Amino acid sequence: MERIRLGMVGGGNDAFIGAVHRIASRIDDRYELVAGALSSTPEKSQASGKALGLPRIYEDFKQMAIREARLKTGIEAVSIVTPNHVHYAAAREFLKRGIHVICDKPLTSTLADAKKLVKAAESSDALFILTHNYTGYPMVRQAREMVAKGEIGKIRVVQVEYPQDWLSVEQDFKQAEWRTDPERSGAGGSTGDIGTHAHNLARFITGLEVESLAADLDAFVPGRRVDDNGHVMLRFEGGAKGMLWCSQVAPGNENALRIRVYGETGGLEWAQEDPNYLWHTPFGEPKRLITRNGSGAGEAAARVSRIPPGHPEGYLEGFANIYSEAADAITAHRDGEKAPPDAHFPTVKDGLRGVEFVDACVRSSNRNSAWVKV
Amino acid sequence: MERIRLGMVGGGNDAFIGAVHRIASRIDDRYELVAGALSSTPEKSQASGKALGLPRIYEDFKQMAIREARLKTGIEAVSIVTPNHVHYAAAREFLKRGIHVICDKPLTSTLADAKKLVKAAESSDALFILTHNYTGYPMVRQAREMVAKGEIGKIRVVQVEYPQDWLSVEQDFKQAEWRTDPERSGAGGSTGDIGTHAHNLARFITGLEVESLAADLDAFVPGRRVDDNGHVMLRFEGGAKGMLWCSQVAPGNENALRIRVYGETGGLEWAQEDPNYLWHTPFGEPKRLITRNGSGAGEAAARVSRIPPGHPEGYLEGFANIYSEAADAITAHRDGEKAPPDAHFPTVKDGLRGVEFVDACVRSSNRNSAWVKV
Amino acid sequence: MERIRLGMVGGGNDAFIGAVHRIASRIDDRYELVAGALSSTPEKSQASGKALGLPRIYEDFKQMAIREARLKTGIEAVSIVTPNHVHYAAAREFLKRGIHVICDKPLTSTLADAKKLVKAAESSDALFILTHNYTGYPMVRQAREMVAKGEIGKIRVVQVEYPQDWLSVEQDFKQAEWRTDPERSGAGGSTGDIGTHAHNLARFITGLEVESLAADLDAFVPGRRVDDNGHVMLRFEGGAKGMLWCSQVAPGNENALRIRVYGETGGLEWAQEDPNYLWHTPFGEPKRLITRNGSGAGEAAARVSRIPPGHPEGYLEGFANIYSEAADAITAHRDGEKAPPDAHFPTVKDGLRGVEFVDACVRSSNRNSAWVKV
Amino acid sequence: MERIRLGMVGGGNDAFIGAVHRIASRIDDRYELVAGALSSTPEKSQASGKALGLPRIYEDFKQMAIREARLKTGIEAVSIVTPNHVHYAAAREFLKRGIHVICDKPLTSTLADAKKLVKAAESSDALFILTHNYTGYPMVRQAREMVAKGEIGKIRVVQVEYPQDWLSVEQDFKQAEWRTDPERSGAGGSTGDIGTHAHNLARFITGLEVESLAADLDAFVPGRRVDDNGHVMLRFEGGAKGMLWCSQVAPGNENALRIRVYGETGGLEWAQEDPNYLWHTPFGEPKRLITRNGSGAGEAAARVSRIPPGHPEGYLEGFANIYSEAADAITAHRDGEKAPPDAHFPTVKDGLRGVEFVDACVRSSNRNSAWVKV
Repeated sequence: MERIRLGMVGGGNDAFIGAVHRIASRIDDRYELVAGALSSTPEKSQASGKALGLPRIYEDFKQMAIREARLKTGIEAVSIVTPNHVHYAAAREFLKRGIHVICDKPLTSTLADAKKLVKAAESSDALFILTHNYTGYPMVRQAREMVAKGEIGKIRVVQVEYPQDWLSVEQDFKQAEWRTDPERSGAGGSTGDIGTHAHNLARFITGLEVESLAADLDAFVPGRRVDDNGHVMLRFEGGAKGMLWCSQVAPGNENALRIRVYGETGGLEWAQEDPNYLWHTPFGEPKRLITRNGSGAGEAAARVSRIPPGHPEGYLEGFANIYSEAADAITAHRDGEKAPPDAHFPTVKDGLRGVEFVDACVRSSNRNSAWVKV
Repeated sequence: MERIRLGMVGGGNDAFIGAVHRIASRIDDRYELVAGALSSTPEKSQASGKALGLPRIYEDFKQMAIREARLKTGIEAVSIVTPNHVHYAAAREFLKRGIHVICDKPLTSTLADAKKLVKAAESSDALFILTHNYTGYPMVRQAREMVAKGEIGKIRVVQVEYPQDWLSVEQDFKQAEWRTDPERSGAGGSTGDIGTHAHNLARFITGLEVESLAADLDAFVPGRRVDDNGHVMLRFEGGAKGMLWCSQVAPGNENALRIRVYGETGGLEWAQEDPNYLWHTPFGEPKRLITRNGSGAGEAAARVSRIPPGHPEGYLEGFANIYSEAADAITAHRDGEKAPPDAHFPTVKDGLRGVEFVDACVRSSNRNSAWVKV
Repeated sequence: MERIRLGMVGGGNDAFIGAVHRIASRIDDRYELVAGALSSTPEKSQASGKALGLPRIYEDFKQMAIREARLKTGIEAVSIVTPNHVHYAAAREFLKRGIHVICDKPLTSTLADAKKLVKAAESSDALFILTHNYTGYPMVRQAREMVAKGEIGKIRVVQVEYPQDWLSVEQDFKQAEWRTDPERSGAGGSTGDIGTHAHNLARFITGLEVESLAADLDAFVPGRRVDDNGHVMLRFEGGAKGMLWCSQVAPGNENALRIRVYGETGGLEWAQEDPNYLWHTPFGEPKRLITRNGSGAGEAAARVSRIPPGHPEGYLEGFANIYSEAADAITAHRDGEKAPPDAHFPTVKDGLRGVEFVDACVRSSNRNSAWVKV
Repeated sequence: MERIRLGMVGGGNDAFIGAVHRIASRIDDRYELVAGALSSTPEKSQASGKALGLPRIYEDFKQMAIREARLKTGIEAVSIVTPNHVHYAAAREFLKRGIHVICDKPLTSTLADAKKLVKAAESSDALFILTHNYTGYPMVRQAREMVAKGEIGKIRVVQVEYPQDWLSVEQDFKQAEWRTDPERSGAGGSTGDIGTHAHNLARFITGLEVESLAADLDAFVPGRRVDDNGHVMLRFEGGAKGMLWCSQVAPGNENALRIRVYGETGGLEWAQEDPNYLWHTPFGEPKRLITRNGSGAGEAAARVSRIPPGHPEGYLEGFANIYSEAADAITAHRDGEKAPPDAHFPTVKDGLRGVEFVDACVRSSNRNSAWVKV
């Protein structure tokens, strides 16, 4: 199978997430990175592209989209890994030229942009994949499959949280700077950057949408212009309730995304920092620890697992699963076929849900935590 | 030192908590149980008292209060371990006769009773001790001491939760029955029974009062008349924010009381089911695990610790600490002296705060989670 | 039921284990401490006895044995909590006068004494109970029951260890002093003090005796006269193999006694520092975490459990279980009856096995780790 | 930088470890797999090569070595991932033609082959890299660095173990078959397959060689021709002592490689299944949990880490670190330069040490666990 020709927008020298996307694209050998507009200035783009040995380097994403679309063996897909406020403008250029888009989360920095991007994606023949990467972890798939099969009964309560600590103090390096700038990050700080992950993970595992929420957002660090801590109560369709906590000021937490789901007959618990384990707690029985590819793990996890149990797969492998399922869909598209039905990846609609979540959090918090529709 | 002569109200044959109080009173050899009115009927009281070999058995608490007060070596203190709705009436009888009261939580089943009980305690010369027992754990004392010394800086965020699973289904044994009956338990179900523990623990460790809260309470099990799951957002005096979750319908959770406190310079984490450990996470340093009586543990924990590190002390020892600190105060009172300044035990005012917390949760939830003052 | 009248030998002011025995005897209200010869000199005995408010204080154990035996309501049982080298002489005095003996481990400091003590116990009508206290933990009982029921199949491999760190450096306080003195502790240092616990726990859970062993003992701290680290390979009757590690020089370990037992169809794992949990790992199924009094826990654990799951019982409760089962036997003996069949406590024979284990370790190590019979 | 042209011997369709090597080679984009002799028969080699889309497919390794050596842009390195007994013959062909060899462990199936392979490697200009992959984990590097810096003082005790459970019963799939066949695997079963990993990890972290050992090996599963459980006592140069346990019959263990190292002033603990954590336990201070790229982690770990703390890197990333450090050395060699001094990878000598370890285990066990030199 020929590798998918991939381009990249953003992800230059000092960007963390660009390197992650590049590794993720390589792990299963489905992509070859051949073009890029990696930085916000032509000079930096040139330098970053050379450092990676890219065959084709562009000054900006528009130039790249136009020229690649004309090449016979131009890129088939592009990864967009810029700050949030650029996602829409960049994605639009590629979508309208039939180039598949793999875009970092959150979808956009504003709700208006998110809605326009949905339209752009829907009116394009190209695919749109959002890298809500945590849905790629095998044991997250396992949890989703167990919920869908009714193994914990009808869901009553969801507890999801994503605490970090890196913004506990004022930080001035690049990652911190744009993520705390509402112009580039969006109206939500921790809610947008990591709250959206928690929200999406809850949706993915439970299969339920959040109908309304009540939020109390804070910016604890003096001078911070976006929230760095968010407390949110959730009401799901069908009557389940939840709590969501996101924070960037919780010392001792690195990327402590964790979800607990309780149904009428059992519970599930998963933590991102120890991703190869899933607790299953059927009511009235001993707790069970299911391990990736181990006893009790099912098909949904196995298909995104590479190695036997006890040899941990981590963040990059989970991320790679999104890329590889996108590759399944892209190669199927290449051949005019449908993607395999069990290939999951987050879509532009999931992205819209995320931006709506941030918008609802901000609206609710501004109205003293009144319940608002999502 | 002569043992304190102790009586007991409630705690008959099939009551769980009475046995706990009796063991707790014995561990440090400070009390001798000599009288009781252990059940709600004279026959059962007689039977339960005989089973324990009590020297003096009474038909009801009033009879016991009157007669013991007249004895030269009558009881000096009484443990009240009945269902909540009896606390006030029973405590009043002993307080007005100068007999010290050690009372189970929550203080009362109604806010009106709680206020009357505060007055009764204040107008009595006798002491009133509330067994919010989790404050007796050594590592809870350690956490409180560290917060007070500023070791995590000014507090920003508090996450506290107390999930259980035993009421995930309809239950009809005695413990379940009265705890889900609003007449006997009070307006709060999970909020009153375990939410008050979480609330009190947060107050105890942080030294901060909850000013207002927004609550979303549910009764998930069909037919249940009180909440079995509560989601609560907290606002503390001074600007700290918190979330509190209590649940009796979370399969896999036994008594999973857990608190995490984050300040400007560090965090603390403690879990009741593994009570001999305290995580301390100073920002920018490796996580530290402090163990009971181990390296890094301080005076406040040591004084309520009996044995060296690595030999776990548990629930009964923590409970005993409340009894033993009460004994310090009672023997000091005997001698007309002040209790030692480092002897902590929850008071009638802490009990009032707990009942106010339940009342606020119910009011807020009835008003669609509006913020209410506590 | 009348409390058993108890005496104590050793356990004066600065002894750690005496206080443990006293608390353990009180927890279930089965004993009343009424006499003691708590220290090695008459003056200290007097002072320690007064501090505890003992009704009858003796100058030494012999005086106590003689006089108590003559009293109408003299002690029925005595706890011997002296350094090891005194166990035999003290126990003999009480056994020959028909007073039950509850003795700390290891049984004696020499093999010769151990054999004499077995004879003394066998020729007495009184009971002899050895406080290998870890066998009192509910989840240890659970493990033993599961092995006996064949739930992990025929045993193949046993891994048991007991590392500590308190002797990593030269220590000069009293506890350290006698425990590192071969005259008082016996020929084994870590092997005698904690290795015997590990050995006894393996025997208790598996029901298998160690037939032979090969040991490599070290005294790492300069000047130390007994081993502070022991590596031992074990061969059990019936073909199972094992490893045993005991150490007092392993920084970061407090009382990290841990056992893992693997049979043909499953495994079990238990750790003393987190004693309310038992891992059960049936081959080909998810791991199961059984909790004290929780789902999946059986009768053997329940009968030595006081409180519901999720409220941890610890070291003192486990110790108390030995005392309370001894009390069952003692009160049965009082009435000329047999002890209940499910009351377990370690006996003088278990004590002999422990001293034989130490002796075998020392012999093997002296012969360059040759296999020796135990 | 041009990718290193890589070939592969072994690793056909149903081999687990071949896929691991391929992913590991891709993660950091330093290699391009261009040739292979992937199976033991020409037909299967052809099929497996086609399935991977390899440009050049060979019937056997000798043909591949001869032809590739003649090509102008033939392979620069070859991965040998066959069963153990083929390692020597295959490696020799490439080494003598100046093609670098990346070889799976253990080095060979016999000690004689191992010694010949050392000579072959020493007389070749090409590099030889052994994939003792666990040394590639960042926190293993962290541990090694801390030991080297004296942060735990002079080492006294090493506890290392590698239990698995997959061979608890008779298995007949291909992986199990050759690994339990002494002709293909070597005289050691669990000792060779996983004991060598444990032995190498202990050497790598402590910097100490095992001087002598005493082993007790068993084949518990009826009919098994090589050991499936090994108990080994270790004596290191300089006086440190150790225990090593390897097992394939310990239900509940997947790849539970774990090492604990205790020195005069502190301890370290690392477990492969949770590889992003390292416990550091300085004597007399609280335990510290160091996380990959987190606070307290140093240079040695950072240079083999790709992503920020809290996003776990796993087995494949650790394996990739060996490949990428090999790539550093290979590209330096390409340019006639020295490899960077901080690039570690296991060498042919490490491989020899491993085969000597297995040989010593077998010899000792055959002599009733006598101490033998390694």
